This record gives sequence, C-alpha cells and structure tokens, in this order.
Amino acid sequence: MIRRNVPWLTADVISSINFSPIHALDGTITPQGCAFERHHSGAIELSKDDYRLMINGLVETPLIFTYADLERFPRETHVYFLECAANTGMEWAGAQLNGAQFTHGMIHNMEYTGVSLRTLLAEAGIKPEGKWVYVEGADASSNGRSIPLEKALDDVLVAFKANGEALRKEHGYPVRLCVPGWEGNMWVKWLRRIEVTAAAVESREETSKYTDTLADGTSRKWTWVMDAKSVVTSPSPQSPITHGKGPLVITGLAWSGRGSIARVDVTVDGGKTWKTARLVPSAHNMALHRFYLDHVWDGQEMLVQSRAIDSTGYVQPTKTELREIRGVNSVYHNNCIQTWWIKANGEAENVEIS
Amino acid sequence: MIRRNVPWLTADVISSINFSPIHALDGTITPQGCAFERHHSGAIELSKDDYRLMINGLVETPLIFTYADLERFPRETHVYFLECAANTGMEWAGAQLNGAQFTHGMIHNMEYTGVSLRTLLAEAGIKPEGKWVYVEGADASSNGRSIPLEKALDDVLVAFKANGEALRKEHGYPVRLCVPGWEGNMWVKWLRRIEVTAAAVESREETSKYTDTLADGTSRKWTWVMDAKSVVTSPSPQSPITHGKGPLVITGLAWSGRGSIARVDVTVDGGKTWKTARLVPSAHNMALHRFYLDHVWDGQEMLVQSRAIDSTGYVQPTKTELREIRGVNSVYHNNCIQTWWIKANGEAENVEIS
Repeated sequence: MIRRNVPWLTADVISSINFSPIHALDGTITPQGCAFERHHSGAIELSKDDYRLMINGLVETPLIFTYADLERFPRETHVYFLECAANTGMEWAGAQLNGAQFTHGMIHNMEYTGVSLRTLLAEAGIKPEGKWVYVEGADASSNGRSIPLEKALDDVLVAFKANGEALRKEHGYPVRLCVPGWEGNMWVKWLRRIEVTAAAVESREETSKYTDTLADGTSRKWTWVMDAKSVVTSPSPQSPITHGKGPLVITGLAWSGRGSIARVDVTVDGGKTWKTARLVPSAHNMALHRFYLDHVWDGQEMLVQSRAIDSTGYVQPTKTELREIRGVNSVYHNNCIQTWWIKANGEAENVEIS
Repeated sequence: MIRRNVPWLTADVISSINFSPIHALDGTITPQGCAFERHHSGAIELSKDDYRLMINGLVETPLIFTYADLERFPRETHVYFLECAANTGMEWAGAQLNGAQFTHGMIHNMEYTGVSLRTLLAEAGIKPEGKWVYVEGADASSNGRSIPLEKALDDVLVAFKANGEALRKEHGYPVRLCVPGWEGNMWVKWLRRIEVTAAAVESREETSKYTDTLADGTSRKWTWVMDAKSVVTSPSPQSPITHGKGPLVITGLAWSGRGSIARVDVTVDGGKTWKTARLVPSAHNMALHRFYLDHVWDGQEMLVQSRAIDSTGYVQPTKTELREIRGVNSVYHNNCIQTWWIKANGEAENVEIS
C-alpha cells in the first residue's frame, strides 16, 4: 500500500487521514480496509496483552480492566456510522473538491461488537456528583473528550470488533469507543481511560477544535450530533457516466445522528423537481442508508442533488440556508445538500447552485 | 498468505477450500477476506472488460450483457448467508473435527449488491414452456445447476459487490449468483450463462453430488433449502475458556434458509435444561443471526449446545433424529444440534451425546 499525503489537510504524514472511496462502494457496510480513518498523532501499536482500560474519577471503586476482562461482560452488536465533524468542511466557502470521496468520504459504517459503557460504569459505581465522563486514548494526542453522563449511559459502546473481526490498528486496536450519531473525534481509539467528572473538562479537542464559527464571527462549541445528510455517490466526479443516454442508476448514501432515514429525494434539475428514491430497508439507527433512483437519462446536462429527511422529520438544508447561520468561515458540521453538474459527455463536476 | 490444503477434503490444492474462522469472529457480517470459499476447479482470473453474461434457451430474445450493462439495471442490496451443502458433513458418523471453524465454517454472511435475476429474465422474455433456468460458471468445472423458475423469479440476485466492494476473485469476480437460503453450490461464481429450459438439466453437480443418502441406502436429490441450524462459536475447541469460573459470554450463530431466526435456546448441561439466548436484532431473512447468553460458570464441566427455532416454527433437530431418516452415510445437509464438552480446565472438545 502506498499512502498518499494531503498537504492542505495535515501538516505531516504521521497525523494523517484516509477517505472512504464512497464513489466506488455500494450497499451500506464499509469494509475495514476501505473505512475512513483519521489520527491526530499516528496510528499506534498496542497489543491485547498490554491493553488496560482504567475507570477513575467520581466512582465508588476505581477499576482497571484487561482485554480479557472486557470479553466477559454482556456483549452487543450494532451497525453505526462514524462521520468526522470536518466531513464536507472544505465546501463552506464554495465548491472545492472534485469527488464524493473527498467532499463526503470522511465517514464509514461498520458492524461493531463490544460492551456497553453503561455496564462498565455500573461495575465501578458512579457517585451522585458524577455528571460527565472524560474519555482518553493511548496515542500521543490522547484525544480527550467530555461526554455528558446521559449519553454515556445511553448507547455508548466500548468496542473490540468491527465487521466481525478484530479492529485494525488504524481503527484503534484493540479497543475503541463508539458514540452513536455523534461526531467521529469522540469515538476515541486505543481507549485507555474513562474518568467520571462533575463538569466537562473543556480540553483542547473540544474547545479549540470542532467548534462552529457562526455568521457573526463568534464560535459555538459542542455540536455533538451529526445532523441528517446525504450525497449522491454515482454518478459523481470520480464515477462519471460512460454509457451515454438511457437507463442510469443514481445511487447514494444518507444518514442521521438522530435516528434513521425516512426518505431521500433526488433531483436531476437542480431542485426544480424531486423524485423519491428507493431506500434499502434498514433496521439500524444512526447507520448509513443506501438509496437508488432508477432514471432514464436523455443525454442532456443534469444538476443532481439528494435531500435526506430523517425519522424526526428534519430536512437536510441547502448550503444557502446553512450560511445564513454559519457564514462561510466554518469548518465543521456542514450537512448541506451537494450538487453534481453532470455534463452531456457524462463527466461530473462539483458545483454550487444554492 | 499461506494457503493450507486439507488432504481428506480435496484431492489437490487447486480445487480447494477456505473455512470461515467463526470461532474468532463476532457480530454477523463476514469480511470478504475471512469468508468461506470453495472452488471445484480453482479460482479464475476474469476481468470486468472481458466479462459477458448470456441468457439463452427458451426466451423471446437471447441476450448478452457486459458488466457495464448490468450496472444500468435497478439494483438491490441484501444481507444473505451462503452455506455449503457439506457444512457439518463430516459429523454424520460421529464427532470428527475439533473446531467450530471445521464443523460449521463452510458458511459466510455478506451484504450483496446486484440486479434481480427476474429483471434480466424479463428483458429477455421467457417463453411459456420455460420452467427452469440452468446457471453456469466460467471456470473449468462450469458448476452447472438447475433452478426452478419460481425461485429464479423470486429473490435470486446477480451480484457484483459484497460488503460494498467488488467481489474478490475467490468469490466470483466480477459477477456471481446469490440464491438466498439455498445450498452454496447453486450460488454460481464467475457466472457466464443462464439458459431457460423446460426441465432440469440433471447435471453432474445436481445428481452425483449434493444428494442425500438415506437410512435405507437410497439417495434423495435436490435438497435445495438449508434448514435452520446453529452453533456455539465460543466457547468451543478453538476458543477455550482461559479465565476460570465466573462471568462467561456464550455466543454463536443461527440461520435458516426458510426465513429468519425466532429464538435460540442454549443448554450447558447437555439438554437437560435450556435458556433462551439474546438475539442481536436483525431485519434480514436468510442471513446469519448472532446470539449471546450471559452465563456465570461454576468451573465445572459443561455440555454446551444451541438449538435454533426459525420463523416457520421449525426446531433444529438432534443428530439422533436426523439419523433416523438419513443414517450415518450421508455427507450433505447435516443441520444437527452440535455439542461441545467444556472441561474443568476450560478446554473444549467436539463430542456426541444425542
């Protein structure tokens, strides 16, 4: 494998990134070898034998678990998406990157197996004044994040398998956190410590980073939930139409950190008219959903967009609507409707129309 | 990768086999790299550019599709298990193989994407006298099988992706058939031809092989559907208990070619008492289901079994019950309840108690 660096994204090749090739995949599961990864201080070597997970802070009994200890607690399996807060982040000020992989590929969707964090916290016993947990990785960045206790006791998973097999090194072997529906950087890899605290730690990772610059220049912190979003993965700049006019499968992905996807609409005329796409049936919340629209292409130019509607009724916004609140200087949490300009020769380009 | 040959199973290293390491996996999805594969004449190199699929026989218009043609038809995505008819086949006459990988690992479960065979047959137009399809692979074995038209028009999929990515060479790149719930050898790989016929071809693959020897010495042909079955994957001979008494996760897989799994019961005392296991919620029919039983082990010997009950109400039989009909000289379609003897030191062994 030859790893390519993206100079504008990270300063060096160690703290690097891989984008899921969503233009080339189908279905909903991301194989681990194709799954988006981001590390702030490089992927680290950590053996199962050396692995320890500490729970400390405002607990009755501070505990340290080995890997073998974790395997003895009741186990759960769930399919969840992980989306980086910065996914689509380069697109705030204009159409920048010519490929769904680079505009929307900071996401993956895997079947995770592990132990509920609730179960481990119950083993330690939370003191009444404990209201948050601070989670920390074993890599040099430590990537510490605070999570409100309500979420920690709800559906957070201490995971040791993805798509059935051991986590790969880049995905946090041997143990990572899954924080369903919430931004990817909270899914701490190489998880080593969970501290129960009375208040949020306000670490570098949750104040200087992952805040949302607003239209008035102020910053909003703690946008944890990833709102409903979708993207057409084919046709797209890396997946042009090569067969000319006639039957064409338009397909893409939709997801919501607040539940499931109720509907995806697709337009080929830049939003003048919309058709409802077929959704692959899914029982999974906070997981990728695949949609298909069976279209007959007349060989003319198209402006293709998709619009997700989630199980809460929320409708994915246009970029114009987002900019009214967020301006053009934001980086994170861009869930705008994406436009691909499909040319008469079948090539596609990232453009902005609303 | 070093490929090991199993001398008692295949005569040479070309027509070989890989068993899914089900004792080491969790969840339900099998990564392609871990997925059971069997080829009768070796895995072949076939490029997308060279790929052609012919539909001929009793059709209005014989057709030849390129790979790019297939991508233009309405597409579906489903999770299905594939089980070899010979899975557990060595166990008819007694407990033989000391590991769930070898007794039950001729199975995988992947998310397949492709085109409904119904759609392609409609394009060709079936003549009134067409009652079967004969499907054929491009490898030297050709592995031809007849499928009744009713099944071919129901849920058979002409698939080109598994777990989102291209099929690997060993899984039939670029195109294979999925015949949900039916024995794996009908899932023809490197699919090259589908002939609509008036009657079954009765090829070598469907008469000399995959028939069921019965107790009276006669043979029954065409046992297509894989009946409900389950196995405890841990603890098991390759996944012993290493932590001594106390909390123990008992886990395994269950499946049915006739629908979904309604319930899995687990016994630790050789069938005297049973407990109902937790099932990972699944919306998929004809797919693997994962079960967990949270047990407190007293450190004494156990006789562990699992028993699947499917959505039709069918209950997985004991080996004794199967032998009353099938005798001990069968090879295929053994869906008996499996027993692991767990010793006081945590080691496990394949044994037979009923």
